[in-house]
Amino acid sequence: MNIKRIEDTLNEFNKIGYSRHGMNRLAFTKEEEKVKRVLIELCEKEGMEARIDHCGNVIMIKEGKNPNLAPVIIGSHLDTVYNGGQYDGSVGVGVGVEIICSINDRNIQPERRVELICFVGEEASRFGMGTIGSSAMAGKFDQEVMSRLTDQEGVSFPKAVENVELDFETIRLASREGERIHAFFEVHIEQGPVLENHQKKIGVVTAIAAPTRLKVTIVGKASHSGTTPMNYRKDALLGASEIALTVEEAAKLEAVNGTVATVGQCSVFPGAMNVVPGRAEMKIDIRGTNVESKQVVVLKLLECFKDLKNRRHLDIQYEYLVDKAPVKLDTKMINSLSTTCEELGVPHLQMVSGAGHDAMNMASICPTGLLFIPCKEGLSHHKNEFASIEDIAIGAQVLEHEILKSM
Amino acid sequence: MNIKRIEDTLNEFNKIGYSRHGMNRLAFTKEEEKVKRVLIELCEKEGMEARIDHCGNVIMIKEGKNPNLAPVIIGSHLDTVYNGGQYDGSVGVGVGVEIICSINDRNIQPERRVELICFVGEEASRFGMGTIGSSAMAGKFDQEVMSRLTDQEGVSFPKAVENVELDFETIRLASREGERIHAFFEVHIEQGPVLENHQKKIGVVTAIAAPTRLKVTIVGKASHSGTTPMNYRKDALLGASEIALTVEEAAKLEAVNGTVATVGQCSVFPGAMNVVPGRAEMKIDIRGTNVESKQVVVLKLLECFKDLKNRRHLDIQYEYLVDKAPVKLDTKMINSLSTTCEELGVPHLQMVSGAGHDAMNMASICPTGLLFIPCKEGLSHHKNEFASIEDIAIGAQVLEHEILKSM
Repeated sequence: MNIKRIEDTLNEFNKIGYSRHGMNRLAFTKEEEKVKRVLIELCEKEGMEARIDHCGNVIMIKEGKNPNLAPVIIGSHLDTVYNGGQYDGSVGVGVGVEIICSINDRNIQPERRVELICFVGEEASRFGMGTIGSSAMAGKFDQEVMSRLTDQEGVSFPKAVENVELDFETIRLASREGERIHAFFEVHIEQGPVLENHQKKIGVVTAIAAPTRLKVTIVGKASHSGTTPMNYRKDALLGASEIALTVEEAAKLEAVNGTVATVGQCSVFPGAMNVVPGRAEMKIDIRGTNVESKQVVVLKLLECFKDLKNRRHLDIQYEYLVDKAPVKLDTKMINSLSTTCEELGVPHLQMVSGAGHDAMNMASICPTGLLFIPCKEGLSHHKNEFASIEDIAIGAQVLEHEILKSM
Repeated sequence: MNIKRIEDTLNEFNKIGYSRHGMNRLAFTKEEEKVKRVLIELCEKEGMEARIDHCGNVIMIKEGKNPNLAPVIIGSHLDTVYNGGQYDGSVGVGVGVEIICSINDRNIQPERRVELICFVGEEASRFGMGTIGSSAMAGKFDQEVMSRLTDQEGVSFPKAVENVELDFETIRLASREGERIHAFFEVHIEQGPVLENHQKKIGVVTAIAAPTRLKVTIVGKASHSGTTPMNYRKDALLGASEIALTVEEAAKLEAVNGTVATVGQCSVFPGAMNVVPGRAEMKIDIRGTNVESKQVVVLKLLECFKDLKNRRHLDIQYEYLVDKAPVKLDTKMINSLSTTCEELGVPHLQMVSGAGHDAMNMASICPTGLLFIPCKEGLSHHKNEFASIEDIAIGAQVLEHEILKSM
């Protein structure tokens, strides 16, 4: 592995969309197009051939000795959240570029075709829907749902893809469902503190947690904060506060099963200092790889709603925004990746992924492996997101070994 | 009292700034100027003389028999909050107009000069500062503080008063501090549910509660909602939730002392479904007529901050936005108004005012009486605010008796 070259590759990517507030290469924007172009140029120098599929995913191809064998794919993404970091996604693509370079350095022609894929639209920031490119490749593009999405400026998803010269009507054709694919590998920063706290260099992901997301509306009665006695109030914020604390309590009890739960959004209406809140809206994100454990948290939440209705006379409505099943990754891949780490003497940990990744879509069409590398203090989706080049190089080394072993 | 005439007067006021979302006659706007003009025309028809003071307050004068006697003043306001109701303020001015008309109907020339004042800028909605006109009249206009205020569109207070042809530099001259004033009376809707719940027609206000307001900032650490284990989190919203519930608990224990406390504003940052909140801001409004009781609530809040710091590792900053002393009204006035109610057979209640009123400023320069009339379900600052004309007429009747008695 050439540490300097990995650094240069990441720097090339991060020239695009850079600002002092963080990286901005949102899904299906000019910036994402530009960074895809940077990738293509880097890979063409290494003798790869570029193909863009119907969804805009970049597929770089290095042919193998035996054209009859199913390919091995390495992939991740280059889009970012608003004011994102320099490592989320980029690391996985950068590691892919480095592995190709390293194989070329050593004049190895692998048995199987190697593909390096840059998936488009992995981050949900722009359209509220993530892993769009890998969903399309896995044959899960839902035209009906996608046609209704708009970004914060009111640009519809079909219009946005048209602006980057894609045809909304043919995106479905990006599907590779049914195709023979030998293996898919992704390297990604952990986006959490577990590897750092355990002083491990690689996380071998066993399962990807799925979110169950609820939108909850609490309706009480707005009234004057100075003239409404405490016992006449129907304060929606107090209901929301109890809900937030219930979410935490339930998730803590389910921590043994790897479930986490968060209230990330909470808004109060009318939101004036002198008005008892009449309405509150919150969004709750429950994640885990254990479906029953997530359900336990939901049930405690429903009990809490009932109690608030009786005790505080609040009207509580809720709806599921998302309720996805977790993805268990291929056991053979997990074992093989762990063995590779051991062979290379890399301290590693089997762990679950709390966040969603392109790998979870690819797992539905081929054996899939996902490796995490540590990131500083678990910070991600932030301009100060950081992973050391040394740790990234270890990820590249492990994956190169694994790929050559699997040929 | 002429019920039809009271209704007509209020209708004349409420033609100005009417919309289906509520009344909009904000402080120091064209609409407030227009409604002042309506008032002046109504009063001039009744033979009163108009004067506008340096703050824009309208002072309508009916001369008394004896020019050496100190005047009796009736006053309230005609400005509204954003999308306000038709009764807050208007009722007090309308009652004043009706009393003048009624005295004229009966060809009574009172011993003392009677003034009817429409104070400007009573509502804090536009500049975050209320009872501006009556503050100026009571000699409490703070030029330094007022020069720094701006509205939501960025218009400064000095610019706003210039736009309605006032001179910011001379507003202080509106002060009547040191002048002999026999009595000041205000009638206002209660803006709370107490009179309605006790089936009383008049509230004789004994004291006006003062707000102690705190802005609290809770700083935790933003992190990924899927990848951050529960025990690694510093969730600012959970801290805010505990604070909100502590505020309620403390105020409930102090309810016997008439203290109320509210968290009316609570914002969460960054406010994304997939991010553990790193920061929360809340504004807390504690009101009461008992200074010690308000202090008990504040102390419990400070204890809670300390506990959250130790237990949740949250950094909590707070500042006082307002910390005012409550205003006790004149005991002789309270007794006299209560006796008048008894003489007229009007079911009444002595009570405190949770909201601030122009009367609290006038109380610092002369004996002051404040009467409440019931409003439906305590709803105020809302387009559906309602008080019955019959109840308003009872308020006018009580106040007319009181004024003639006090001459």
